Amino acid sequence: MELEFLGTGAGQPSKQRNVTSIALRLLDERNEVWLFDVGEATQHQLLKSNTRSRKVTKIFITHMHGDHIFGLPGFLTSRNFQGSELIDGGKPTDVTIYGPAGLQQYVFSVLRAAQVRLQYRINFIQVRPGIIFEDQQFAVSAFPMNHGIEDYAYRVVEKDTVGQLQVEKLLKLGLKSGPLFGKIKAGEIVKLENGLTINGKDFLGPDRPGRIIAIVLDTKDTPEIIKAAEQADVLVHEATYGAENSIMAKRHGHSTSLQAAEHARAAHAHQLILTHISARYLGKMADQLVKQAKNVFRPTYIAHDLEIFDIPAKKSERKDKIDVG
Amino acid sequence: MELEFLGTGAGQPSKQRNVTSIALRLLDERNEVWLFDVGEATQHQLLKSNTRSRKVTKIFITHMHGDHIFGLPGFLTSRNFQGSELIDGGKPTDVTIYGPAGLQQYVFSVLRAAQVRLQYRINFIQVRPGIIFEDQQFAVSAFPMNHGIEDYAYRVVEKDTVGQLQVEKLLKLGLKSGPLFGKIKAGEIVKLENGLTINGKDFLGPDRPGRIIAIVLDTKDTPEIIKAAEQADVLVHEATYGAENSIMAKRHGHSTSLQAAEHARAAHAHQLILTHISARYLGKMADQLVKQAKNVFRPTYIAHDLEIFDIPAKKSERKDKIDVG
Repeated sequence: MELEFLGTGAGQPSKQRNVTSIALRLLDERNEVWLFDVGEATQHQLLKSNTRSRKVTKIFITHMHGDHIFGLPGFLTSRNFQGSELIDGGKPTDVTIYGPAGLQQYVFSVLRAAQVRLQYRINFIQVRPGIIFEDQQFAVSAFPMNHGIEDYAYRVVEKDTVGQLQVEKLLKLGLKSGPLFGKIKAGEIVKLENGLTINGKDFLGPDRPGRIIAIVLDTKDTPEIIKAAEQADVLVHEATYGAENSIMAKRHGHSTSLQAAEHARAAHAHQLILTHISARYLGKMADQLVKQAKNVFRPTYIAHDLEIFDIPAKKSERKDKIDVG
Repeated sequence: MELEFLGTGAGQPSKQRNVTSIALRLLDERNEVWLFDVGEATQHQLLKSNTRSRKVTKIFITHMHGDHIFGLPGFLTSRNFQGSELIDGGKPTDVTIYGPAGLQQYVFSVLRAAQVRLQYRINFIQVRPGIIFEDQQFAVSAFPMNHGIEDYAYRVVEKDTVGQLQVEKLLKLGLKSGPLFGKIKAGEIVKLENGLTINGKDFLGPDRPGRIIAIVLDTKDTPEIIKAAEQADVLVHEATYGAENSIMAKRHGHSTSLQAAEHARAAHAHQLILTHISARYLGKMADQLVKQAKNVFRPTYIAHDLEIFDIPAKKSERKDKIDVG
């Protein structure tokens, strides 16, 4: 699991930062990539990355401002040619797009205007607060943000993995693999042929807790941020401004890096990554944003375009620490 | 007068060539820039150029395919902030957009979806074949192309400049500047106070003929191309493919570099610039396209992203040569 920041700027592209898009690379977990927002030229950023657009199966849109959606039509159109017979012998996989009201109409009206005929299907899910996607591996929830327009934070929760069957331990007892192993793996209490009774749970490795990623983009302060970010392993949080511009931040419906840090601390997050940085914080000036945040929440980082953050699988030992919070 | 190629690729962006946009820089002539097509990330290309989006007063769209229009909403939105009090104390100037049916609805529906409030006005002119713009300095005409969708080539004609009044020659005759000079400048025959009769035309420098630029994008062969390009000083012509792919070019409604050269020759153009190059012609391979064209029309060039071609003012002596064709 990795987070790749395709664009880390605010409002307009600059030479240093493109407008917003974040790729959650779930290549080991499910050979998929999920995008969060698709600002203009996201497909151009992908040309410089090794993330392939045909791996993108889900797109989550936080809100309908141009710097978060104007790259969507181009991305979807070019993706049409990314699974052609020239590349891997098939048409691209379908895509599900989650977002606010009006998103479906926006996308379809643009594609219709440009007479685009997609070879794959787009499914739209209109987001409302609560769980918007769930399968055996992941759940994604939406939390309403405060930005003067319908706007959501997304919380991605990886489900805990049940411990692995300790096969060697069973073989040492003289057992042979077969249906019995299935029962043991399910944690059942099993009576063996030799009369011995064993508890399946004693032959399972520790459960591996899932990871939690929270993505909080364009918003000013709202209690929903803490809910979205609760216990997150990684909280990605917009920091359009520094603390010195807190009034302007509030007026424009944005956050400061200091507020992001306060949210990370209040939510007991483990790591904070700042993004959506105003172009006024050029080069080293952006370090100031991190410094302000670190005073409140030490494990703070600032994202740069095309930077990849690895989010390693947790060890079971870590779980206790997390539960303590 | 300069032509700046902001994007020279076909269909999708590549690392070497962005999708189509061409800036006609009329800075000396009228302190304006005119854009022809606005593919995605045109505003990003402008960040690398010294062409300022607030100088753009006219945008001509050839057709509604995504690689020619998906950069328009972002360009128009970011331009909103290019004339703010931070930069030059005023709101941006209005923009007129010329293009096929459906363009106005596309632009306004996208801007509405993104809740963009522009500080300047956009005027839309729905293009039909013939003259679409004319003032004392320039005329622009549209010619229907053959691309399976409503599509136009644009011919920009700079009007001839009347010769300058040769003031020194008049002063030598003992004349003083005044209303008389106006009559002489108008080329009238004038009787002077000393009884001498002079012909105003003898006191005017030579007329300077205007320049002609023809922009022929996505199209397969059609006689209208020759009309659009007749006597053009610069013919910009799409060359998506090389001559070896002429069947594919025709099937997709495109041209080969060889066809572009044949059109330049038939239209008695003076210079040919190839653009809209398929990504299959990587690096040096694109030279092959030029070579094919040069066999038919020697003054052929191929455009690269951010390349600027100067189109110098003509000398009056050149006019005879041009008329000969």
